[in-house]
Amino acid sequence: MNEDIKKNIVKNWFKILQNVICRDIEEIENKKNIFKSKSWLRGKSKNEGGGEFRIYENGKVFDKVGVNFSEVYGTFSKKFKNKIPGTNKSPKFWASGISVVMHMKNPNVPAMHFNTRYIYTSHGWFGGGMDITPSKKDIVLKKWYHEELKQMCDQHNKKYYKSYKKWCDDYFYLPHRKEMRGIGGIFFDYKKKNWEKDFSFVRDVGITFKNIYRQIILKKHKVKWNKKDKETQYIKRGRYVEFNLLYDRGTKFGLQTGGNVEGILMSLPPLAKWK
Amino acid sequence: MNEDIKKNIVKNWFKILQNVICRDIEEIENKKNIFKSKSWLRGKSKNEGGGEFRIYENGKVFDKVGVNFSEVYGTFSKKFKNKIPGTNKSPKFWASGISVVMHMKNPNVPAMHFNTRYIYTSHGWFGGGMDITPSKKDIVLKKWYHEELKQMCDQHNKKYYKSYKKWCDDYFYLPHRKEMRGIGGIFFDYKKKNWEKDFSFVRDVGITFKNIYRQIILKKHKVKWNKKDKETQYIKRGRYVEFNLLYDRGTKFGLQTGGNVEGILMSLPPLAKWK
Repeated sequence: MNEDIKKNIVKNWFKILQNVICRDIEEIENKKNIFKSKSWLRGKSKNEGGGEFRIYENGKVFDKVGVNFSEVYGTFSKKFKNKIPGTNKSPKFWASGISVVMHMKNPNVPAMHFNTRYIYTSHGWFGGGMDITPSKKDIVLKKWYHEELKQMCDQHNKKYYKSYKKWCDDYFYLPHRKEMRGIGGIFFDYKKKNWEKDFSFVRDVGITFKNIYRQIILKKHKVKWNKKDKETQYIKRGRYVEFNLLYDRGTKFGLQTGGNVEGILMSLPPLAKWK
Repeated sequence: MNEDIKKNIVKNWFKILQNVICRDIEEIENKKNIFKSKSWLRGKSKNEGGGEFRIYENGKVFDKVGVNFSEVYGTFSKKFKNKIPGTNKSPKFWASGISVVMHMKNPNVPAMHFNTRYIYTSHGWFGGGMDITPSKKDIVLKKWYHEELKQMCDQHNKKYYKSYKKWCDDYFYLPHRKEMRGIGGIFFDYKKKNWEKDFSFVRDVGITFKNIYRQIILKKHKVKWNKKDKETQYIKRGRYVEFNLLYDRGTKFGLQTGGNVEGILMSLPPLAKWK
């Protein structure tokens, strides 16, 4: 298949998924047209793509949720080029992706994060994953959540779950705190073995994320909580901010390649505390 | 003068200043023994110094204030060594400093930050500065504040103010937001021309900080404010967090050299918001 067709198919999938997830969130909130949408362009004069991020705040179920789509292209700066595969001969790139971050009102519902992307330099690859961050220990949830992920991964390749779970654990770690950001999930990158199969996996990750957050929310969002639980959640959100600003590659990549600041920092919680 | 004596004198000054500032804050709050104090050691088995940070939260005037003293020594890691002057022949270092961060209850009072330090590798130098971050425009305050700083600087060297003000403006800048963190102040580093004179300047910076925060607080902390002003302050604090975690050299230095995490991240506000 022609690479332009591939890019187009992938991009359309990310766009569709953005719509599906936004509609789903509206259904959970039981309210229509709740998202503020903002479209942005990457280059000012040149055509370098852009994106659309949708944000919803102060809901009954969600404190803040962002659903971000982007398609950007252009040339990497010299500094950045060497860090990205396939840029030896040319600094050109194309990238499209979707990312979702949910910060929940009820502290019994974990914060949830998902993204998938396709990057093309002189070759193309997929990356992405999902992870969740409860503010308190919940062994039952953790077990169920990881089993869901394993089941989905196993349908594609029996080796995926173990390897992508480890990648996730290694990635979402705060060395200065010696603690994990949350309870992990899956994380993968440089996926480029078989485009059709890889893309099918990427679609499945998106659908599985939708099923997972939906089930967790429906199970947990009516569980009672008190002020102390909320304080614990605010402190946990402080750790979330620390991770995203100190270590997250996506945040650094975005800020250094002139991405949309509001869109990139959409992942930050609406309110965080430090003791 | 012997270098050990110099280190000792400098360290004692930083300790005295910590006491003076803490007593001053207690006077402003009109309450005694309000600080929680925590001493920490840098190395676990080895003797590599440590520090004491003092923190006070939820006061009448202060939302959160930290007054941090440290004296650490040891050897730099290979990664770090090349970034620090005077480490060509030996990776050994000694460093002592005081840092203060004030996050105020009344949004009409700026957040205020100050630090001074002395670092010795194969030679010694002073560094430090102060800067303040109002959450809204205040031309009168800005003018007065910078005049105070200029007056103090001029007593030492007519060139200091202009040069250290610029250094501060360049440093406390958020490139991704294209905005300054606050309204600046002074910032200096690698100060090693004349130990006696440099140390006298460093002491004056500390004393001037004390005069400045005291006057600003007394002038402003009874000015009326509303919920909207507080929200503006919370958003401004979000920018403060972004700066400290994305760009601040002190934070990076501390986290990468195994400093005390609580002490290093003491600078973060108690509560920050993102829209």
